[in-house]
Amino acid sequence: MYDDKYYPNRVPDTRDIALPFNTENINEMSIDIGGSLTKVCYSRPDDTATGVRLCFYSLETDKLDELIEFIKNVLIKYYDHNPSNHLYNPDLVLIATGGGAYKFYDKLRHELHCTVQKEDEMQCLIVGLDFFVTKIRREVFYFDEAEHRYIEVELSEDEQEVMDNQYPYLLVNIGSGVSMIKVTGPGADSFVRVGGSSLGGGTLWGLLSILTDCRTFDEMLEMAAQGNNENVDLLVGDIYGQGYNSIGLKANHIASSMGKVYKRVFEDEKGRMEDRAHRLHKFQQRDIARSLLYAVSNNIGQVAYLQAQRYNLKKIYFAGSYIRNHYQTIRTLSYAIDFWSEGRSKAYFLRHEGFLGSMGAFLMRRDGEPETHPRFVEADLNSLTREATHER
Amino acid sequence: MYDDKYYPNRVPDTRDIALPFNTENINEMSIDIGGSLTKVCYSRPDDTATGVRLCFYSLETDKLDELIEFIKNVLIKYYDHNPSNHLYNPDLVLIATGGGAYKFYDKLRHELHCTVQKEDEMQCLIVGLDFFVTKIRREVFYFDEAEHRYIEVELSEDEQEVMDNQYPYLLVNIGSGVSMIKVTGPGADSFVRVGGSSLGGGTLWGLLSILTDCRTFDEMLEMAAQGNNENVDLLVGDIYGQGYNSIGLKANHIASSMGKVYKRVFEDEKGRMEDRAHRLHKFQQRDIARSLLYAVSNNIGQVAYLQAQRYNLKKIYFAGSYIRNHYQTIRTLSYAIDFWSEGRSKAYFLRHEGFLGSMGAFLMRRDGEPETHPRFVEADLNSLTREATHER
Repeated sequence: MYDDKYYPNRVPDTRDIALPFNTENINEMSIDIGGSLTKVCYSRPDDTATGVRLCFYSLETDKLDELIEFIKNVLIKYYDHNPSNHLYNPDLVLIATGGGAYKFYDKLRHELHCTVQKEDEMQCLIVGLDFFVTKIRREVFYFDEAEHRYIEVELSEDEQEVMDNQYPYLLVNIGSGVSMIKVTGPGADSFVRVGGSSLGGGTLWGLLSILTDCRTFDEMLEMAAQGNNENVDLLVGDIYGQGYNSIGLKANHIASSMGKVYKRVFEDEKGRMEDRAHRLHKFQQRDIARSLLYAVSNNIGQVAYLQAQRYNLKKIYFAGSYIRNHYQTIRTLSYAIDFWSEGRSKAYFLRHEGFLGSMGAFLMRRDGEPETHPRFVEADLNSLTREATHER
Repeated sequence: MYDDKYYPNRVPDTRDIALPFNTENINEMSIDIGGSLTKVCYSRPDDTATGVRLCFYSLETDKLDELIEFIKNVLIKYYDHNPSNHLYNPDLVLIATGGGAYKFYDKLRHELHCTVQKEDEMQCLIVGLDFFVTKIRREVFYFDEAEHRYIEVELSEDEQEVMDNQYPYLLVNIGSGVSMIKVTGPGADSFVRVGGSSLGGGTLWGLLSILTDCRTFDEMLEMAAQGNNENVDLLVGDIYGQGYNSIGLKANHIASSMGKVYKRVFEDEKGRMEDRAHRLHKFQQRDIARSLLYAVSNNIGQVAYLQAQRYNLKKIYFAGSYIRNHYQTIRTLSYAIDFWSEGRSKAYFLRHEGFLGSMGAFLMRRDGEPETHPRFVEADLNSLTREATHER
């Protein structure tokens, strides 16, 4: 839910999408089960206007049972299906993607008593991205380094023009880990996973869950926003002094993430033996949070730039649940692409960043092909609105 | 000092280099002051044979005063110069490189009472590498993935052939941070820093100094050798199950470094509030050490591969004090290059990996040019031996 008090650290995040010209409720929902988070996409009648609303919801994959309860409530409320009756409804389809679609296939089928249709994870990501980028206004934005603010990308009224300008691009999906996918066109044969990294959201969440007292990833990000990484990072200026250096980097460039910690620990101890918990308390949680947020984001930015450069892709979309529309994260990814490409490539972000896979799955037809002309084309795109609602 | 008990986790590391045909002691020494470690190279008469020995010594940069005492002892013992007399000796030259050469220039000059000649860090790295690679037998080795053992690179007797085969290459120097340098020939204009990373030795040392009870980096590496990263890393198999996955990665591939930690912390708490020190103790230090060693090494390997691929460089030398001739580190870097390049690029390592900069500085003449025909060419390379000795 978007809360203005977070600005400028947040931009509006995952709101429902109203489809006022879509009068028929769609008897489908989708689930994208990732390594850390599970994302759900479903439609329901609009209470306040004509048409339907596309709704988005996510929960930790560890709480899959809780999420299944949520889905049951949605099915009872809007889909005329009560799984507690133990009556199997083959006409109701849950389209499942993500790693867990395979792992939890039987569980989903058994507990929801409906058809579970598995779809390829990467294809769903691409289909979802293409939908958000070409059909939904105010979805895509970038951070303008010069003006130091978010800029929304205008969506041309000419749908063909939008499609023509869309390819090629690199999709960097940041969940627990990172996947990088080169996309050259809309077809199923037009994308390939070109690389990835194990240093992703799971790494930052994992490290910060033992290096801070935070309980949620959003708390960690709020903490990072307050911290000063210069207390723990070794800067170029710390090594070279403020004057000349031959490597051509600014004095405030980070030479070594967490590079001041080791020195500090052993300077303080002076031969005494302290355990890790004592050492940990020498450092401000917020400084560590900021340092590691920068380290992981910078690194993803650099690897993404190198992959984009390798295939001559100027446009890079960053998506996945890691970003969470968080100001520092977006800034760092955006700055990294600008720095490494010397302004030649550009980083784009999406409001529904975490829901590409579930959105794409939602759009898959029963024959496993994506909707090339989604039902929602009937909607007047100019009249799309967003509001925050939740089923609980 | 090389100790056989560490095998196979270690290969022989920084030994002196004997130069039996070099009868004249060289009235010079060099220092390379990095962000974390300072490295010294000096020559002294050989006690056991004719000629001189090149000696190598390093200490944390924070202990620079202790290191200056060490240098004073060497100067008194072998260089006919006693800085305590406060008599300035302009004929004695300390050649200084690394970031600290600028920062500590006045201090060195004031305390050692000799000429301090600053030299460019990157050029010293390249000159040092070229010397080790082309002049010193048994210096360069690689890890053979198929045979699962270290292989020493044979040095041709034909010096010209050695030089001809040397270029181009990528030098990846891993200290506190990482620098990547493309080298196309022996000249001063033939190298350029193409990239780097803030995720280097300083990051691993920093994180492990608060996540383990270890007191030295060697202790951290020993601990990592005992750990099992699968207890904290999220593997592809943990997400997809052991069966099919569409992304084409093996089940034991690391999807997210430290990706199991977040779940485990919050599963255990079940709503209770625990602080970071309590959470930390849920995990084995050795598992974290192994995970982070893999994460940092894998990442450096991937970025190095992408940079090498960008400039079509087949040969990648890994150097710097991070590696410490440690088995897992070498294995991981080597595997990463093999994996990403599909066998087309190769990772090489050096026994004197941490001393490229100080060796290169040692070889710089007073006019700032490297010795193109180092004095040591007179030595019969076949008779070079190495022994571990230390001035204390």
